[in-house]
Amino acid sequence: MIQQPNYPAEPWVVRETALDLDRMAQSESIFALANGHLGLRGNLDEGEPRALSGTYLNGFYESFPLAYGEGGYGFPEDGQAVVNVTDGKLIRLLVEDEPLDVHRGTLEHHERVLDLRAGTLTRDLRWTSAGGRSVRVTSQRLVSFRQRSVAAIAFEVEALDGPMRVALQSNLLANQASGPGSGDPREGNHLTNVLESQLCVDNRLRVVLAHTTRNSGLAVAAGMEHVFEGADGLLTRVESERDLGRLTASVELTPGEPLRMIKLLAYHWSGRQSIEWLRDQVDASLENALAEGFDELVASQRAYLDAYWEMADVELDGDPEIQQALRYAQFQVLQASARAETRAIPAKGLTGPGYDGHTFWDGETFVLPVLTYTAPQLARSALAWRHRTLDLARDRARQLGLRGAAFPWRTIHGEECSGYWPAGTAAFHINAAVADAVRRYMLATEDVAFEREIGGELVIETARLWASLGHFDADGNFRIDGVTGPDEYSALADNNVYTNLMAQSNLRAAARVADRHPDVAAGLGVDVAEVDGWKAAAEHMHVPYDERLRVHPQDQDFTTHEHWDFEHTRPDEYPLLLHRPYLDLYRKQVVKQADIVLALFLRGDAFTLEERRRDFEYYEQMTVRDSSLSACVQAVVAAEVGHLELAYAYVGEAALMDLHDLEHNVADGVHIASLAGAVMAAVAGFGGVRDHGDELSFAPRLPQALTRLAFPVAFRGRRLHVEVTPRRVRYALGPEDEPLSFTHWGKVVHLSAGTPITAEIPAAEPLAPPRQPPGREPLSRRVVHDGDTRATDEAS
Amino acid sequence: MIQQPNYPAEPWVVRETALDLDRMAQSESIFALANGHLGLRGNLDEGEPRALSGTYLNGFYESFPLAYGEGGYGFPEDGQAVVNVTDGKLIRLLVEDEPLDVHRGTLEHHERVLDLRAGTLTRDLRWTSAGGRSVRVTSQRLVSFRQRSVAAIAFEVEALDGPMRVALQSNLLANQASGPGSGDPREGNHLTNVLESQLCVDNRLRVVLAHTTRNSGLAVAAGMEHVFEGADGLLTRVESERDLGRLTASVELTPGEPLRMIKLLAYHWSGRQSIEWLRDQVDASLENALAEGFDELVASQRAYLDAYWEMADVELDGDPEIQQALRYAQFQVLQASARAETRAIPAKGLTGPGYDGHTFWDGETFVLPVLTYTAPQLARSALAWRHRTLDLARDRARQLGLRGAAFPWRTIHGEECSGYWPAGTAAFHINAAVADAVRRYMLATEDVAFEREIGGELVIETARLWASLGHFDADGNFRIDGVTGPDEYSALADNNVYTNLMAQSNLRAAARVADRHPDVAAGLGVDVAEVDGWKAAAEHMHVPYDERLRVHPQDQDFTTHEHWDFEHTRPDEYPLLLHRPYLDLYRKQVVKQADIVLALFLRGDAFTLEERRRDFEYYEQMTVRDSSLSACVQAVVAAEVGHLELAYAYVGEAALMDLHDLEHNVADGVHIASLAGAVMAAVAGFGGVRDHGDELSFAPRLPQALTRLAFPVAFRGRRLHVEVTPRRVRYALGPEDEPLSFTHWGKVVHLSAGTPITAEIPAAEPLAPPRQPPGREPLSRRVVHDGDTRATDEAS
Repeated sequence: MIQQPNYPAEPWVVRETALDLDRMAQSESIFALANGHLGLRGNLDEGEPRALSGTYLNGFYESFPLAYGEGGYGFPEDGQAVVNVTDGKLIRLLVEDEPLDVHRGTLEHHERVLDLRAGTLTRDLRWTSAGGRSVRVTSQRLVSFRQRSVAAIAFEVEALDGPMRVALQSNLLANQASGPGSGDPREGNHLTNVLESQLCVDNRLRVVLAHTTRNSGLAVAAGMEHVFEGADGLLTRVESERDLGRLTASVELTPGEPLRMIKLLAYHWSGRQSIEWLRDQVDASLENALAEGFDELVASQRAYLDAYWEMADVELDGDPEIQQALRYAQFQVLQASARAETRAIPAKGLTGPGYDGHTFWDGETFVLPVLTYTAPQLARSALAWRHRTLDLARDRARQLGLRGAAFPWRTIHGEECSGYWPAGTAAFHINAAVADAVRRYMLATEDVAFEREIGGELVIETARLWASLGHFDADGNFRIDGVTGPDEYSALADNNVYTNLMAQSNLRAAARVADRHPDVAAGLGVDVAEVDGWKAAAEHMHVPYDERLRVHPQDQDFTTHEHWDFEHTRPDEYPLLLHRPYLDLYRKQVVKQADIVLALFLRGDAFTLEERRRDFEYYEQMTVRDSSLSACVQAVVAAEVGHLELAYAYVGEAALMDLHDLEHNVADGVHIASLAGAVMAAVAGFGGVRDHGDELSFAPRLPQALTRLAFPVAFRGRRLHVEVTPRRVRYALGPEDEPLSFTHWGKVVHLSAGTPITAEIPAAEPLAPPRQPPGREPLSRRVVHDGDTRATDEAS
Repeated sequence: MIQQPNYPAEPWVVRETALDLDRMAQSESIFALANGHLGLRGNLDEGEPRALSGTYLNGFYESFPLAYGEGGYGFPEDGQAVVNVTDGKLIRLLVEDEPLDVHRGTLEHHERVLDLRAGTLTRDLRWTSAGGRSVRVTSQRLVSFRQRSVAAIAFEVEALDGPMRVALQSNLLANQASGPGSGDPREGNHLTNVLESQLCVDNRLRVVLAHTTRNSGLAVAAGMEHVFEGADGLLTRVESERDLGRLTASVELTPGEPLRMIKLLAYHWSGRQSIEWLRDQVDASLENALAEGFDELVASQRAYLDAYWEMADVELDGDPEIQQALRYAQFQVLQASARAETRAIPAKGLTGPGYDGHTFWDGETFVLPVLTYTAPQLARSALAWRHRTLDLARDRARQLGLRGAAFPWRTIHGEECSGYWPAGTAAFHINAAVADAVRRYMLATEDVAFEREIGGELVIETARLWASLGHFDADGNFRIDGVTGPDEYSALADNNVYTNLMAQSNLRAAARVADRHPDVAAGLGVDVAEVDGWKAAAEHMHVPYDERLRVHPQDQDFTTHEHWDFEHTRPDEYPLLLHRPYLDLYRKQVVKQADIVLALFLRGDAFTLEERRRDFEYYEQMTVRDSSLSACVQAVVAAEVGHLELAYAYVGEAALMDLHDLEHNVADGVHIASLAGAVMAAVAGFGGVRDHGDELSFAPRLPQALTRLAFPVAFRGRRLHVEVTPRRVRYALGPEDEPLSFTHWGKVVHLSAGTPITAEIPAAEPLAPPRQPPGREPLSRRVVHDGDTRATDEAS
């Protein structure tokens, strides 16, 4: 259920105007800063109160044995969990002899602002101690996009009511204790004391600590450096212990003469390099940051973001709340991926420990489509990471008795870490997601070097998996039995339509790669017979259809199953996975998240409009959206088949998933794929962008409340700009761009730089709104806009 | 693969003529003694060398948390594992100053004999120490059928080469260490140090120790008492420590004047009674045993067994090896059940820690059919145990979102302990197995009191489960989706034929109970509408059929799946579950154990002979018999459809499963259900006994090698004796029996006491033998008989 908005609808900032101690965990995630390599949760400077203190390095994990009540051959032996590394965010303040603690004294003002163009989190507070002394504290924090290992904090404290002595303590703290888990399987493992001290050194105002993990054998070095301004008479002391580095600074403050401390942080980690080398890197990074200075870090941060927004910004007029949410979403997508480079994009980015820091199929399926058309080099980088794990995926396929590569359902390093295979390894569709991301990236970039070095191999090895996983039946149909599709409320089903259609594209893509790059294919041992096998499997792929209901069953048996008893399901029993056994869910017609509806989107070329309409309406009545990956997909398909107002409601739900904590688990980190999905929902939904096969197409149409949607599309070196208004759409290329052809509502458009084209949008035909499960209707945006009612009636 | 026989084929004993140190674990299981309440593995008196020392009390378990890589709602939280309780079997001997240890000195003779009529294990050895001193040691061990808490050992040692000083140590030892497991999930958990000492006392030649378990909170008291004969100059010392009670006796032996020690053991345990009371019971049991004396214990043991064999003995002429194996099987079935009384019959009886000491569906499906027609009071007792766990089963059904009762797939105390639900909780057919066992027991006994107090409620609550688990589809068929049948190489399938047919009988049985005992039904809240619902579900039960192949698919989709690639499966990859992932097995046509073939047996009334033939042959080619519960069922159906020589081969495999260790895991305990299955295979296979609906029928026919099969049938207070020879069969009642009607090859026979009837057996029609998966053919009995060839070619 949608809650009251927490943040005023401002176009470029997310502002928190008061500190809500009951929602610390959520705000820690919402205000997390990251650059894809290093992430800092939005913890208070003083560290406490806190829900989860978090500092994460992409790819830095600890492994642990996975336990099974009853094991089985091929069950993964080890789990991997992201590690909360050495915390450098901590700056504690003692005012006279009282600690600045929001639990004590009086907090007269507290505001935090995440600036989506500046890439900084600022905090401004006025606090009076129990003893009656008042201070103003401001801090500004950034995790640098330009210098991936560096974060910086400018911390300023000012006496408000007369001279006073204050002490600052700037810490580096390893092995902070975390609380016990709630038991929700999505929140991740709580490993404690995983860091073993290897080195602790201090030098002037700098401390460096280095640690290793016990099981995974990774090493991390973290350092802090400090610069003071306006600090006459400052007395400082620096200490280093095994798990603690600390600078303590004492000074007498006078009103109007604040003390400003710049704290610079640097992190490096490796599975190969020595502690000594890592320490050198930390010291070098700190020296660079020191030379550059805080103001220059801030300036370069903004410059980086300006370039990003130029290619990414989705403008949406008519709904400021969603406008803000879309920008927040794109900011978080960038934070998760910008400098990930040789690492994966985790499901929660680097904003929290949820899902153990694992990456899933949603990277390729939800995040990469957004990156491909805004920052394609980041999509390339994410696929290059998959490619680096190919040998592990080949090993896994072999273990499973299959050929090619079987990518893990969830992982940090590349090994399968799913402890429940029916919803893990059996979800083979992740392999098609990788291949589809390659296809999309190639379509958008024509990056032949990528195809030859990375993409081609990914597509071929995943096609091999499908060829060995499926089989031809007596009628010559190619069937894929016993797999799990995107909907995790079904499992181990035969001929999941989504999986089969995505496998079909995968097989075709592999055949095309073999045709285009015979030398690459030959290098992988592909021969003509194998390619013919892929083509035959794709051509004869079994796509079940229920003639009686005139819909596609999610899998061949799905529509014969019992309907879920929604009438006897209480609102507090959602998400169902926490209140009903899989055994009950799997046997019935109830859908956690878009499955066939995702196929209607990604493989829309395989369905007629009439089929898409009927399928969408059929599944709409049983889809409970217990996954954050559902609303965005439903939005796209609702818009496509003509339910624009419903699409608008779903865009709202997708966009506000994290800012309004609709799933009640943003505490563990924001949902990167859902955030990307919100952007996709707007652009593919109302912008009508599709990229089936090798064609870019548009079929835009806005819901009533929106007056304008404008977005850039990075496509083959061009910047195509699309501006949708209620009746027409304007397409324009960048001034230097080569001409481009695409389709608008099915008609080919030839566009040249300097000659924008305006095209009409066909009128929508009226349709009766589809039904959702009782109590699971999305909140209508109109209700949200029109006033303070809390109605939850169906969007219409 | 069948190994060389280990034991000479003698009709009433199992004799081991030499000690094989490499097969200690197997012989410990084979020579285990038990009475259904107390079980002692066949460890050597001196305790070592050993594979697994084991002393078990039925129902005495420790619980432990079940771990999950990824948990889920309704996953069982705790496991239960049988505890190796205080060991009272130990009698160590010091000859001069050398311990009698078969690893040392020279073992000149070693023979052990399990006497199936006496119910004793005797051992006879001659040993010469490294120092050159020779002794003869004999021991005779029994676990009393008459006094369920009592075991006794007569231990005799004689000097052979002149006077010598020996010391005997008779121990009670708790918390013996056990070795690490092999990783085979079937062997059970190895819990250590689960017993906490509560009491240790000694008095004269008696010691009593009492312990409690840490988690399950059960208490056990064990005591030993001693009597010496021929012990002039004996010096004794008795000690008691927390985990050790010990009697040490020293004596100077003279050749011809052996020392004989009688060691009496008593065990009592409880989850409610105080330690003090348990101790009293142990002392009282010891006092009774002491008063009775060893010889009387031996005599009453034989009397108990004479009565058993009178109603149980299956005579089979023409194959001494199988004759012996069948008697061994019936002896072990009795040992597992005789005094189980308020407890379950575990899958391994009380012979080892395999499967954690759990009971499964095989109790009702394989063991109870044998007990029902030989010792019906033991079948009643086992069903009464199920009945006592009904409230736990009702709770479990509720947790699963179902009505009625959901009995656990595996348990000791009644709670579901399966840590892998697709092959545990999803195997709902266990509930129909309980109902079918009730139906059979009622057919055989007409025990109305049982039906009113126990059976009726079991049948009604399980019928309720089926009614809520299934649903009517648009065509009005009743479907049961997403369940696992007996074949564990498929899971979560729709409309498993076995399950649906067994559920159908279950629903019909419940409707009959409601008709016969309206007051009982009303007491359970049953109304007319509910009964009508059961009848409708039974009538419209969906039984899928593959029109193209003209066979029943194991589940509705089974025959569309890929065939297993037997050509590329190496012999060392069986059992497949240890070498291939479930994910691979579930998706393909490969069968671990009889599933539809079991339906052909238990619900033969639902198939024509032609269907049974075709189905049997279809599944025969893909059934790998990786479960010990397969061969016996295949034997029955093979015989029924006319493949008599194949049936004979399967009877051989079933009967020798444990004595020849065909599954390579008799080390963890004998397979009680498979042993019972061997008896069933002979009686239902060659004797052609069936009990469909409410009719007893016979259609006997022997394979060529067998000249006679004779067996008693306990039926409604009568002792029907059936004697099958190649051409005819003779039916006779006991002298005092009431007349009885049944069918012989489809014709009704009216039989009266004193007037045996002889009937002709119709000639068999010749059939081409069916095929098995390559390399999985059963060993032909003819080959075994005809000589020393080790061929594994197909039985024909």
